Amino acid sequence: MSEDQSGIVARARGGDVTGVWLVGARGSVATTVVAGCAAVAAGLRPGVGMVTETQVCAQAGLPPLGSLVFGGHDTVEGSLPKRAEELAGQGVLPHGLARSVHGELAAADREIRVGGPLPGERRGDGELIAAFAADIEDFTARTGAARTVVVNVASTEPVPPPGQVRLPASSLYAAAALRAGCSYVNFTPSTGIRHPELAAQAAAAGVPWAGRDGKTGQTLLRAVLAPMFAQRALAVRAWSGANLLGGGDGAALADEAAAAAKNAGKARVLHDTLATVPEGEVHIDDVPAMGEWKTAWDHVAFDGFLGTRMVLQTIWQGCDSALAAPLVLDLARLVARAHERGLSGPLDELGFYFKDPDGPTSALSEQYRHLVAFADRLGGPA
Amino acid sequence: MSEDQSGIVARARGGDVTGVWLVGARGSVATTVVAGCAAVAAGLRPGVGMVTETQVCAQAGLPPLGSLVFGGHDTVEGSLPKRAEELAGQGVLPHGLARSVHGELAAADREIRVGGPLPGERRGDGELIAAFAADIEDFTARTGAARTVVVNVASTEPVPPPGQVRLPASSLYAAAALRAGCSYVNFTPSTGIRHPELAAQAAAAGVPWAGRDGKTGQTLLRAVLAPMFAQRALAVRAWSGANLLGGGDGAALADEAAAAAKNAGKARVLHDTLATVPEGEVHIDDVPAMGEWKTAWDHVAFDGFLGTRMVLQTIWQGCDSALAAPLVLDLARLVARAHERGLSGPLDELGFYFKDPDGPTSALSEQYRHLVAFADRLGGPA
Amino acid sequence: MSEDQSGIVARARGGDVTGVWLVGARGSVATTVVAGCAAVAAGLRPGVGMVTETQVCAQAGLPPLGSLVFGGHDTVEGSLPKRAEELAGQGVLPHGLARSVHGELAAADREIRVGGPLPGERRGDGELIAAFAADIEDFTARTGAARTVVVNVASTEPVPPPGQVRLPASSLYAAAALRAGCSYVNFTPSTGIRHPELAAQAAAAGVPWAGRDGKTGQTLLRAVLAPMFAQRALAVRAWSGANLLGGGDGAALADEAAAAAKNAGKARVLHDTLATVPEGEVHIDDVPAMGEWKTAWDHVAFDGFLGTRMVLQTIWQGCDSALAAPLVLDLARLVARAHERGLSGPLDELGFYFKDPDGPTSALSEQYRHLVAFADRLGGPA
Amino acid sequence: MSEDQSGIVARARGGDVTGVWLVGARGSVATTVVAGCAAVAAGLRPGVGMVTETQVCAQAGLPPLGSLVFGGHDTVEGSLPKRAEELAGQGVLPHGLARSVHGELAAADREIRVGGPLPGERRGDGELIAAFAADIEDFTARTGAARTVVVNVASTEPVPPPGQVRLPASSLYAAAALRAGCSYVNFTPSTGIRHPELAAQAAAAGVPWAGRDGKTGQTLLRAVLAPMFAQRALAVRAWSGANLLGGGDGAALADEAAAAAKNAGKARVLHDTLATVPEGEVHIDDVPAMGEWKTAWDHVAFDGFLGTRMVLQTIWQGCDSALAAPLVLDLARLVARAHERGLSGPLDELGFYFKDPDGPTSALSEQYRHLVAFADRLGGPA
Repeated sequence: MSEDQSGIVARARGGDVTGVWLVGARGSVATTVVAGCAAVAAGLRPGVGMVTETQVCAQAGLPPLGSLVFGGHDTVEGSLPKRAEELAGQGVLPHGLARSVHGELAAADREIRVGGPLPGERRGDGELIAAFAADIEDFTARTGAARTVVVNVASTEPVPPPGQVRLPASSLYAAAALRAGCSYVNFTPSTGIRHPELAAQAAAAGVPWAGRDGKTGQTLLRAVLAPMFAQRALAVRAWSGANLLGGGDGAALADEAAAAAKNAGKARVLHDTLATVPEGEVHIDDVPAMGEWKTAWDHVAFDGFLGTRMVLQTIWQGCDSALAAPLVLDLARLVARAHERGLSGPLDELGFYFKDPDGPTSALSEQYRHLVAFADRLGGPA
Repeated sequence: MSEDQSGIVARARGGDVTGVWLVGARGSVATTVVAGCAAVAAGLRPGVGMVTETQVCAQAGLPPLGSLVFGGHDTVEGSLPKRAEELAGQGVLPHGLARSVHGELAAADREIRVGGPLPGERRGDGELIAAFAADIEDFTARTGAARTVVVNVASTEPVPPPGQVRLPASSLYAAAALRAGCSYVNFTPSTGIRHPELAAQAAAAGVPWAGRDGKTGQTLLRAVLAPMFAQRALAVRAWSGANLLGGGDGAALADEAAAAAKNAGKARVLHDTLATVPEGEVHIDDVPAMGEWKTAWDHVAFDGFLGTRMVLQTIWQGCDSALAAPLVLDLARLVARAHERGLSGPLDELGFYFKDPDGPTSALSEQYRHLVAFADRLGGPA
Repeated sequence: MSEDQSGIVARARGGDVTGVWLVGARGSVATTVVAGCAAVAAGLRPGVGMVTETQVCAQAGLPPLGSLVFGGHDTVEGSLPKRAEELAGQGVLPHGLARSVHGELAAADREIRVGGPLPGERRGDGELIAAFAADIEDFTARTGAARTVVVNVASTEPVPPPGQVRLPASSLYAAAALRAGCSYVNFTPSTGIRHPELAAQAAAAGVPWAGRDGKTGQTLLRAVLAPMFAQRALAVRAWSGANLLGGGDGAALADEAAAAAKNAGKARVLHDTLATVPEGEVHIDDVPAMGEWKTAWDHVAFDGFLGTRMVLQTIWQGCDSALAAPLVLDLARLVARAHERGLSGPLDELGFYFKDPDGPTSALSEQYRHLVAFADRLGGPA
Repeated sequence: MSEDQSGIVARARGGDVTGVWLVGARGSVATTVVAGCAAVAAGLRPGVGMVTETQVCAQAGLPPLGSLVFGGHDTVEGSLPKRAEELAGQGVLPHGLARSVHGELAAADREIRVGGPLPGERRGDGELIAAFAADIEDFTARTGAARTVVVNVASTEPVPPPGQVRLPASSLYAAAALRAGCSYVNFTPSTGIRHPELAAQAAAAGVPWAGRDGKTGQTLLRAVLAPMFAQRALAVRAWSGANLLGGGDGAALADEAAAAAKNAGKARVLHDTLATVPEGEVHIDDVPAMGEWKTAWDHVAFDGFLGTRMVLQTIWQGCDSALAAPLVLDLARLVARAHERGLSGPLDELGFYFKDPDGPTSALSEQYRHLVAFADRLGGPA
């Protein structure tokens, strides 16, 4: 599709269009989301990694991939088509894909607005929220979207220092989403909609939301392995892990406070499924040489029968953006549909996607059953 | 407990005693079963690794560990107390345990009978089955057991050569169990009760049975990881594995035909949960230097979003006997209780324990739910 | 450089041109050799992986990369520029490189001749040798090369069946090299110049040669790790390994006989440096999904002080062609220079590059010292 | 040997007796040193892990294992025979060994004196040094040892805080060794003899010394793998590592400052052999559940030809005490012999044993050659 055609197509669909507003719209995840959505919608690639493209979601009434239009906030300069070329050079996007979906990338690029707070920001929280909400509303109006879902895919922000007056950036964007009447997804470990100051506004907004911290690698594994140990009545003594990340995420998480936020999610799955917290730490290292790739090593020391000491180790080597993007598309579609169906508040049934979900954490297999039931509910009679 | 006391205790319980007849009664698994049962029953060790010692089985009416009495067949000489000392030297049993449970080991040792067919065996299949059945019946009568469950924990036997007239040894023992009116568990990949010639007898016997091939390591992992890939809609391209085993099992499986039987079970879980058979082989190496320990390496090459290539590797280092023994105790208790409750035929609900179960293979989490439901049923109203 | 220019440049150098005749000239290794030589010569990429580009070879008088011209035999159709594009799609060659060195790839492509024996071949060994030698001589004359080195980078051939009358293909090419007065390198585990029937001809040819079986991954590691165990007086009990390969090599080595040849080399390094053969096997699996990438897992069970059992595991993930190509360029330059200096016979000093070298196997560190001394000798007074 | 006999034997040898004074004499390493020396001397176990028991040291005139007598300082209570039983329970010492060498353990236990500084210590540095030196001199006199070598195997001490007036404990012991005219080995990353305030005394003492920080696992591997990358001209981009340790060392190194000292040694080998410092961190985690065992995972991201990204991972699972003890015995014998031969000052040739050696760091293979040459020198003409 050429650039112009894609724009025309989107607008022509009228009420069928669903807006996806990405906070962190020039990052690797956002770029992969936009490029991948276009590629799968056009039939250039199969929808690998997306539960919403499998049979269990076929009757859920989800917005088709081809009906999604993208925009977003970012605080850095750049262009999505160029970013996509860089990702192809790193093996994240397949050869030639960036060119095939250039139109969609350029269209999304035109819908990116400057976020904040910027260095030396003078605007107060209220002004920023209003400005962000206006950006989102403009986007929704301009694209003719029936509704827009705001998705936070920005770099993890540090836990705010004790005396900070300002709301964290992720919460400013969440507040803007609420003000604009949008549903909301927090794919990062940042605070977002969970800030106590947003509680009343969120409760009153009548929109659904989901979060927090996408479960893309090490924690995904833990969500199936920890239940295995529990079901087999094996005694986990220590669960240790190391993560090597390049890209922006590695740098952001080299910040100890940001890492602390992420690690809280990682520990939660162990606590909730093992009913105890085993010994062991998790390290997150910034290794720029890894580029967009990440490696997670886990070492589980457990006792078998009569106290015999045994060990399981796992090594997960993946590309963060490629792991995250299909989940982001799933969430955008599911939450937008929930909004359409009139659901509001935290969507506990989406724990499948998160390290630190709104509902109780549980084994991945249970979370999957909840997801399937949720899809059925979305497609059921009103 | 002294040797004499333990004998007295068992007999004094009268009708409460349950017999466990181990085929391969002098092997590492059998020795660990007997020693471990005594240790846990006496409160010397917690029941790690046994689902039947967890809350989900508390109301199932299972025979207590202290009410189990052991005997069995083997074709090799030896003594259980001495075998237990050897296992302690290898770190399989904890220091001093063999001495603490010497009485129970010696009691079980006195109940071991010579199995077969022996090298140069002249007795026909019918004679052997009759002799084995008589051994089991004598054991049941002598110990005053209300019923006996026969459990195959012998070394994996090779797939029989095409022209062999005789039944495989594992099927001879299974036939003897049926003739003696016993329930039956096949913890190995050998043929056992699944031999076509036993079908009619099994159907008519009115006893329950379960099998085949205990799921203790690599396949256990596959039973949680393969569903994870399926639920996340990730495309597994190749699943390769290598197993290093010492002990008797390593030597037995160095036989290519025996390995073939084992590998069939390993492949089944992938086929059944991924709905496709990915590329890749599984190797089983006999490495005597590993002793009772085994290491399994798995390499899973999968495609993420847009075909990005990713890899998961797992390394499982465990002690085979310590992994198997609690499952054997679980199965003996569950199947004996099923027998008591009048159940008969293959117990599909026990797929949790097997690589190649009687019912449909499925994800471990589903198998666990079936197991819990089964335990409820065992404890429910008659 | 455009296609024409590259041809002109080569010819203009006159006596300085060195021919490199690749047996298996359309394979991944050969394509990477030609593309990589051009890229490094043109300064597009640093000479990573080539010892001949480091300081230790600076005074050896080696032919510059820019003076090498390529040709070769192959039995399959195809085009080098197209093959290079495919390799770029797999991440073996960097984006855009194939285009940058299109001229050199096309030039080499024009110098590829049909090899043999072809299926249903009617020509006898003598005829084939003569034909191959003529191809090589034509190439040398046409390019004006002062000398040509023949390098076998074809797929591993199976060990010939007992009754086979014909020489193995690799030996036919080696004989052709000798007849054409060329030096020779066997980078594969195939027989090549080591066939007994070639012994007299080789001894009389007055040319140098080197082989066999390039040491690119698992065996490279073993060549540093086995000496470590020996020097630390640690007792290696078992050394087991698994290799997963896609590409042509995986398929070739799925042939058991071909794998046997490769494994002999792998075992040799352990035997020669540990002075004993530990337990353990090496498996080579064909996993087409791996494409050009390979993964090698090694598991070393060793005894420490007082018999304490310890384990080292290594996982090597590399791209076979990218590992092999710089070594092939090193060898071509070193052997061509040795030829120029009048050396003849097996070059024992090149054991650094081979699993199964002509001289005694030894630790990599010693082999490196021999290589450095050899480079000094090549650059020394005549 | 009974307790009394062992004492008699030692004294009867007169001038042949060599004293080994262990700082940290009740730790796991010291216990393993004493038990292992006795076991190997008595022929109960082979001398696995000791270079001094191999052919290359046969002519070096080293003191026989049977001529070593042990004593030392520690600040904790306990008994070596009891400590040895605990280590056997963890699988560090073989079953039954503690009983076989009870006499030697008890004899060494009687030679352990209270070290310092103790909590709330009132003695000044000078007083402590004098007291420690007196303990060592008494030991030497009482055992009739010709000379004594002091070996630091205590837990790693934190880097001293900026304003600390007192010498670090390890330096107090080193000063005592110098005052008592003893040779000295620092097997830990603590400061020891390298403290600037000891420089003049050390230079004047006329005794040899060696250190620092025994190379037992991850760094041993790095000392062979980093040279491999360098020799093959492969570009290491990032070298990351994680260490899981139980035992006392894990707890000591959980202290960030102590870990910093250890990591400096680990980084040095990369810097010195790669001529560059790659990206990547090393983490040391205290995991009490690991007991005496440690696991080190290393991840090396490197570029091959044309920048192709490749990865090597290693997993080292060992028992720290069993890795350290044979090196401690090697060092005690080599340094005592050097003292006997009149050598003094830092023994640069012993870099084979240390992460942070006195001489230049280099590849393990070179260090081994230096060690062999040193052994020859020790055995050569005076």
